[in-house]
Amino acid sequence: MVYLDYQSAKPVDNRVLESMIPYFNKDFGNPSSLHSVGDIATNALDRARTAVAHFINAQPEEIIFTSGATESNNLALIGFAQRHRKKGDHIIMTEIEHISLHNIAKYLVKLGFSVDKVPVDPYGKVDPRKVQERLIPGTILVSVGLANNEIGTIQPLAEIIELCHEKGIAVHTDAVAAEGLIDLDVKNTGIDMMTLSSNDIYGPKGVGALFIRDSIRLAPHILGGGQESGLRSGSENIPGIIGMARAADIMQQELGAEVSRFRTYRDIVIESVLSTVPDAYLNGHPFDRLANNAHFRFDGIEGESLLLALKDKGFAVSTGSACSSKTLEPSHTLIATGLLHEEAHGSLEITIGRFTKKNDIDEVAYVIPAVVKRLRKLSPLYKEKS
Amino acid sequence: MVYLDYQSAKPVDNRVLESMIPYFNKDFGNPSSLHSVGDIATNALDRARTAVAHFINAQPEEIIFTSGATESNNLALIGFAQRHRKKGDHIIMTEIEHISLHNIAKYLVKLGFSVDKVPVDPYGKVDPRKVQERLIPGTILVSVGLANNEIGTIQPLAEIIELCHEKGIAVHTDAVAAEGLIDLDVKNTGIDMMTLSSNDIYGPKGVGALFIRDSIRLAPHILGGGQESGLRSGSENIPGIIGMARAADIMQQELGAEVSRFRTYRDIVIESVLSTVPDAYLNGHPFDRLANNAHFRFDGIEGESLLLALKDKGFAVSTGSACSSKTLEPSHTLIATGLLHEEAHGSLEITIGRFTKKNDIDEVAYVIPAVVKRLRKLSPLYKEKS
Repeated sequence: MVYLDYQSAKPVDNRVLESMIPYFNKDFGNPSSLHSVGDIATNALDRARTAVAHFINAQPEEIIFTSGATESNNLALIGFAQRHRKKGDHIIMTEIEHISLHNIAKYLVKLGFSVDKVPVDPYGKVDPRKVQERLIPGTILVSVGLANNEIGTIQPLAEIIELCHEKGIAVHTDAVAAEGLIDLDVKNTGIDMMTLSSNDIYGPKGVGALFIRDSIRLAPHILGGGQESGLRSGSENIPGIIGMARAADIMQQELGAEVSRFRTYRDIVIESVLSTVPDAYLNGHPFDRLANNAHFRFDGIEGESLLLALKDKGFAVSTGSACSSKTLEPSHTLIATGLLHEEAHGSLEITIGRFTKKNDIDEVAYVIPAVVKRLRKLSPLYKEKS
Repeated sequence: MVYLDYQSAKPVDNRVLESMIPYFNKDFGNPSSLHSVGDIATNALDRARTAVAHFINAQPEEIIFTSGATESNNLALIGFAQRHRKKGDHIIMTEIEHISLHNIAKYLVKLGFSVDKVPVDPYGKVDPRKVQERLIPGTILVSVGLANNEIGTIQPLAEIIELCHEKGIAVHTDAVAAEGLIDLDVKNTGIDMMTLSSNDIYGPKGVGALFIRDSIRLAPHILGGGQESGLRSGSENIPGIIGMARAADIMQQELGAEVSRFRTYRDIVIESVLSTVPDAYLNGHPFDRLANNAHFRFDGIEGESLLLALKDKGFAVSTGSACSSKTLEPSHTLIATGLLHEEAHGSLEITIGRFTKKNDIDEVAYVIPAVVKRLRKLSPLYKEKS
């Protein structure tokens, strides 16, 4: 099986798994306990917080551990909105955010906030001026994903932060799609809140973090015993947190080499597919795109059929976001870039990761043209142009 | 080191850990993916849901996986309150619920709900008539923990459910403290919602579940991609969920034998301490108490000093709830049973678990009298009675 769907899920790195094991059955204490088993857990938690902070150039006390990126997004947006309601009720995001942010937006609207969504260009890029022209006196928060989780387009976040900060408006970014592919530096960029996922850097699922700049105040979203500085209650998932920290350490060492390898592989796939398959197009930005992302659309065929045909041949790929792949809805991201429903449905996403081999790339590049050709023969929709 | 603080944290059973490993690095897929790696995750998730349902005699579709008991309590109470607001705004719980429920209550009050707290008797027991007399036309939900997480008192939940159901009022129980110690049967008891934790049955931390009877509707608390029937978004923590399911399977087999062993051990500790230490008392109910719980108070000494003295001698015990043990507040549970602050501060909790040996019990029973005697010699507060 050739796995090329790293955007949907990643295997845990064996080095990460090894680091977690003792915390399951040996050093299993509760950091709130005052005895020695609890002390070990407290120390482990402190070290993990420092490692994750280091990964994004933050302070340890600016890291809150959560159960994953979705929860981090909930805490960031709902927690910020509820805490700063007196200051204003206007929030800005983009049309191509992760599905969790769109559903959080609906909830915030129910609570009486207004949420403005910035459109994107045909490459999925946000124009900072379009953010700027939406800033009003009641705007309290702007949320723009650093890179898109489907088409891989990277946003001009630094510019957006700058123009928001000029007006004293806080900026959140869901950095999950960019993790392990772009160097994350919260000091350098000045971002106020950043959502991180553990699995996206080859750590365990069920863990994530939210970076919250020390000047930013939030209301908690999960209430209870007051863990995580009162912002995220519940006994800490120590093995998971240790795993995320180890994953961050490894990623910090290996990101540079990985990104350059991914970029080579990605470009082989893109060039090969576009040059051998007629009426094939690249979705997303031609160069401001994640190093591991190749996202195509093919006239006249359904992405689902293509995925299933590739599944038969032993390839695991995606038609877009795993988060909505079991619904029949076309990707909201592709629609936002201006594609028609039938175009959006003809999409195929290939994402490369740590364990991808050159051979996997050659194989998928070899098999796609034949599969597309066969499916088009069966398709009443497809007529070759020219 | 002799670990006798199973209420605060439990080691993961090695059989559980073994079952989880393949899902970290081999079968690591996202259940939302349509390819074969995703299919394996989907099937694993289905099997896990069935196992956890079986553990409490529920249907699989009545189980929602969460990141832990605290999140389950948030979903149960906030989700129910928000969804049923039109029906009423009055909620009842008890004075000795887990800290998470007390903080959720504060939040609900902010949202405009009113929360009534039922007092308990000196043994920490709720009188069902005191619940009954608080039921008003606007009451929508009653939440009573099946057993207390500190003093181990077991509540007459069946009676409370019956009298609430007569008036069409739903009942939630936080069953975490009782897990693995009392047979949980949602069909038999008719409970409407039940909070479960994975670690409390020797599964991994960072996972929990909420049983929601199929007739009960909730608003989601974590918004996003619509996983877990739309009630709990976020990519599923498959290894953690598999671990919880395996833990439930094992517990179902072993609960009977464990409980009878724990009861023997517990009674040895209780009898030994009460018969050898003057001015020592048992907190909680003399017989309606969890089989693994021995909770004492000693006149004239601080629980913290006792814990640290026992820590020096290689014992890990607790002064009460780990969730608030790092604050200086006395336990709200002990205060609710009518103890004075100084009495509550003189408490010691011993909880027995799967890996406790008879020898551990003999050692702690032997060492406590000497330690108490020594601390009392140093205490200006203590004067032996009679």
